[in-house]
Amino acid sequence: MLYGTSMERATERGTRRGAERRAEIVRSALEVIAERGYRGATLAAVAERVGLTQQGLLHYFPTKNSLLIAVLEERDQWDTGSARRDGGNVWPLDLLTSLVEYNAMRPGIVQTFSALLGESVTDDHPARAFFTQRYEKVRADMAATLRGEFGDRLPGGLTPEAAAPLVVAVMDGLQFQWLHDRDAVDMPALFRAFVSLLGQGDETARG
Amino acid sequence: MLYGTSMERATERGTRRGAERRAEIVRSALEVIAERGYRGATLAAVAERVGLTQQGLLHYFPTKNSLLIAVLEERDQWDTGSARRDGGNVWPLDLLTSLVEYNAMRPGIVQTFSALLGESVTDDHPARAFFTQRYEKVRADMAATLRGEFGDRLPGGLTPEAAAPLVVAVMDGLQFQWLHDRDAVDMPALFRAFVSLLGQGDETARG
Repeated sequence: MLYGTSMERATERGTRRGAERRAEIVRSALEVIAERGYRGATLAAVAERVGLTQQGLLHYFPTKNSLLIAVLEERDQWDTGSARRDGGNVWPLDLLTSLVEYNAMRPGIVQTFSALLGESVTDDHPARAFFTQRYEKVRADMAATLRGEFGDRLPGGLTPEAAAPLVVAVMDGLQFQWLHDRDAVDMPALFRAFVSLLGQGDETARG
Repeated sequence: MLYGTSMERATERGTRRGAERRAEIVRSALEVIAERGYRGATLAAVAERVGLTQQGLLHYFPTKNSLLIAVLEERDQWDTGSARRDGGNVWPLDLLTSLVEYNAMRPGIVQTFSALLGESVTDDHPARAFFTQRYEKVRADMAATLRGEFGDRLPGGLTPEAAAPLVVAVMDGLQFQWLHDRDAVDMPALFRAFVSLLGQGDETARG
């Protein structure tokens, strides 16, 4: 369900318009986040950007968190969509490295992801379900990626299922270190180093 | 400086008493966090536990964040103190694994660490300096650990300095996944798998 509670509004045209409006708000929120970061991305700032009153914005997104979750969902769809090879369901490992490089160019959205992830570990947080489900899906996708690259047995005797949460952990964990000290932490280089750790064992085993 | 602004208070006895009181508050906060988690650890709950009025508590810790940072500092001192071998400045890798096992038994403090880490990525957050400095120190300690275990060249051609932030990232990143789904994510087993990834390459290189 895209928006609203009233049956009258739910005509096909209304729904389409509502979806377009939502998409426009999410794009604007992404711009505001890029410019001002997590804290600066207030509902008021987003409403102003998109040309709505704050009350009008609340019709589509009743809380800041609901808007931020929509932004992160949109980012995920965009990132994974562009990283999937020919509509397959596996991200190639080299495109994952590109994704980390891309993230290093958008601190605002990485900050938003990391701040919301931090909040979401508290009980009953509205973003909790989003991250729990996201992790489950991302781990499954990552296991498929690793199986595609390395087969059933990885360096160190790891299964793809054991290595998948490690890849995800490295990505998330490096983001926190990078956000705290961008000069000291070369996030893309460190992620490539981790991938080489997976690859090296593999080459050794093959060689 | 331990507390207070008034010179009169800063007698030796007063300072010692103040330090004891602070330590007592930190211990109580740790208990409340263990029982009720990050959100439940309100200043009111901690004041009640330690037998102070909330106003009295504010004398020692003016904000919830300042108290939580003191708790995390205390945890770090305790953990690294107990993990250092004979007063050396290097944590052995096997004790690091034990630390992850220990963390898996204290979700409240892990939740507090992760929630505060998330908040701290926003600009001007009071916990930002704590985490930035902590990361710098932990990465340096970790590089020394890795150099002690593996020498100057690690599996995959990594230097200890490149691998150190990866170990830290895996620890932090796994905590988020674990907090979101403790049944699906066996944090200690996954961390051991990561260590085996470092160790396996090494054995291959040596063998």
